[in-house]
Amino acid sequence: MRYFITGCAGFIGSNLTDKLLKEGHEVIGFDNFSTGLDEFLIDAKKSSQFTLIKDDLLNREAVEKAMQNVDAVFHMAANADVRFGTNHPHKDLEQNTIATFHVLEGMRANGVKRIAFASTGSIYGEAETIPTPEHAPFPVQTSLYGASKLAAEGMIQAYCEGFNFQSYIFRFVSILGERYTHGHVFDFYKQLLQDPNKLMVLGNGKQRKSYLYIQDCLDAILFAMEKAQDKVNIFNLGTDEYCEVNNSIGWICNYLGFNPERSYTGGERGWIGDNPFIFLDTSKIRQLGWKPKLNIQEGVMQTIKYLHENPWVLEKRT
Amino acid sequence: MRYFITGCAGFIGSNLTDKLLKEGHEVIGFDNFSTGLDEFLIDAKKSSQFTLIKDDLLNREAVEKAMQNVDAVFHMAANADVRFGTNHPHKDLEQNTIATFHVLEGMRANGVKRIAFASTGSIYGEAETIPTPEHAPFPVQTSLYGASKLAAEGMIQAYCEGFNFQSYIFRFVSILGERYTHGHVFDFYKQLLQDPNKLMVLGNGKQRKSYLYIQDCLDAILFAMEKAQDKVNIFNLGTDEYCEVNNSIGWICNYLGFNPERSYTGGERGWIGDNPFIFLDTSKIRQLGWKPKLNIQEGVMQTIKYLHENPWVLEKRT
Repeated sequence: MRYFITGCAGFIGSNLTDKLLKEGHEVIGFDNFSTGLDEFLIDAKKSSQFTLIKDDLLNREAVEKAMQNVDAVFHMAANADVRFGTNHPHKDLEQNTIATFHVLEGMRANGVKRIAFASTGSIYGEAETIPTPEHAPFPVQTSLYGASKLAAEGMIQAYCEGFNFQSYIFRFVSILGERYTHGHVFDFYKQLLQDPNKLMVLGNGKQRKSYLYIQDCLDAILFAMEKAQDKVNIFNLGTDEYCEVNNSIGWICNYLGFNPERSYTGGERGWIGDNPFIFLDTSKIRQLGWKPKLNIQEGVMQTIKYLHENPWVLEKRT
Repeated sequence: MRYFITGCAGFIGSNLTDKLLKEGHEVIGFDNFSTGLDEFLIDAKKSSQFTLIKDDLLNREAVEKAMQNVDAVFHMAANADVRFGTNHPHKDLEQNTIATFHVLEGMRANGVKRIAFASTGSIYGEAETIPTPEHAPFPVQTSLYGASKLAAEGMIQAYCEGFNFQSYIFRFVSILGERYTHGHVFDFYKQLLQDPNKLMVLGNGKQRKSYLYIQDCLDAILFAMEKAQDKVNIFNLGTDEYCEVNNSIGWICNYLGFNPERSYTGGERGWIGDNPFIFLDTSKIRQLGWKPKLNIQEGVMQTIKYLHENPWVLEKRT
């Protein structure tokens, strides 16, 4: 198969690129390298099956041109900066909503009908039903990031109805593992490397979060695309557990052998729009036959191990 | 109060403009006249309290400039062309999603914190729960129009969380009454004037639709803004009944004294994305104390009467 992957130099996109190449597929990777890293594509670039296009999804013509003869699209590119959304509201609109529109129009222009989309559990806002199933009550958005992903989901669904597309929408918890460079675990690790005796925690540390290991996430995506054949296929992806921010701090400190003094900014939210409790009901994809191989603690450990072995990553993300 | 109304020359916007002026308020009206009509503002223009700005919501600077010293915004402008959305997918994105973003940014730049938004029952897609309440299960979008309104709702909600806005989101059924120039009733009336003996109906005529009379709609909006004081206030607006397309045809024919031969294109949908059953649960706003004065049949009659007395409207909408 010939696949088109947006955000191919990003955390999830580059891991997916490597996996699909390894399975013998052809991959057209598209990335503007705003947050993607060349280093994540070192393996991919060794493959004759891989084509890299450095361009921006806001360049609609480039997207259209790059998508020729493609069997399916994995739309992984995003402004994933949830926390600082209010600093630059246009970013979520442009890089998530409008970029997705260009992907859909590129597909339409090239007769591509199948799309997998990296959405987020953030679109449930502060859910009333926890664990939150895909058919939870109509949510109220609490972040520009969630709102822009919701906008993208809605367009994808409308293209399925209007243009006979087939879509796979994956609402992720936070993903971690190899090439993870963004979020709680990364921030804590970085702080501790700078000063092993102090750790500043946003909020009260009791925020309950869910994580999924990157390889489990990719397995779930490919599994669902093989097994589910509705017009619009929506799946929550996560493990069947959650942890407190304090838990992950404990695991990280244990691994590193540090015992820092923790200071808390206080409050049940780390920042405006931070969700104090994210836990998705993943029974829909489990009933299809998938389950994760790693639990949250193992995923966090795998991540710290990766960061430890790849100190260059921290220099790239200052 | 000093209000900013987008789409002030449109069906709902112009009626709202007249109503607020009549109540003694100041109104800054903004319209690009892509579908709005100068004729709808004849009364408004007589008022010294009315300022008209002819510009486009895609012109972000113009929006910002126009919104100075405003107390609240009524965002009524939209591409309301549900049926032909797939002919030009960019229209819904631009005129609904991006336009709403510019309205929100204009508010932020001017310190305006209160917004009422004309959303739509279309965002429930083909709802499983009927009548459909505001907290219905997370819907799947079936039209680009619905998707773009959902995108706008999401952004508005995120601005409430991120920038301390207060919002009133109204999910309308189809609105009709004075200045109605778009939709089933209008199309049927126009066909019958051209040939009283023939009527072509899209679908099987059994599509079940809900309508609300424009003055009831405006009353509900102002009522909710007075009574409800949450950060995000979402209300379905409609009557507590629905009718079949065939019913409204009967009422129209009766009124006109015509007995046309009806031909049906067939199928339970009039067009791709047409929703065969729209019926909203309006108990939330009813519990607040509002109820409509006119039922659906009375609203349809009022509309036909208006169209009959204003033949110029039909010439404008060819």
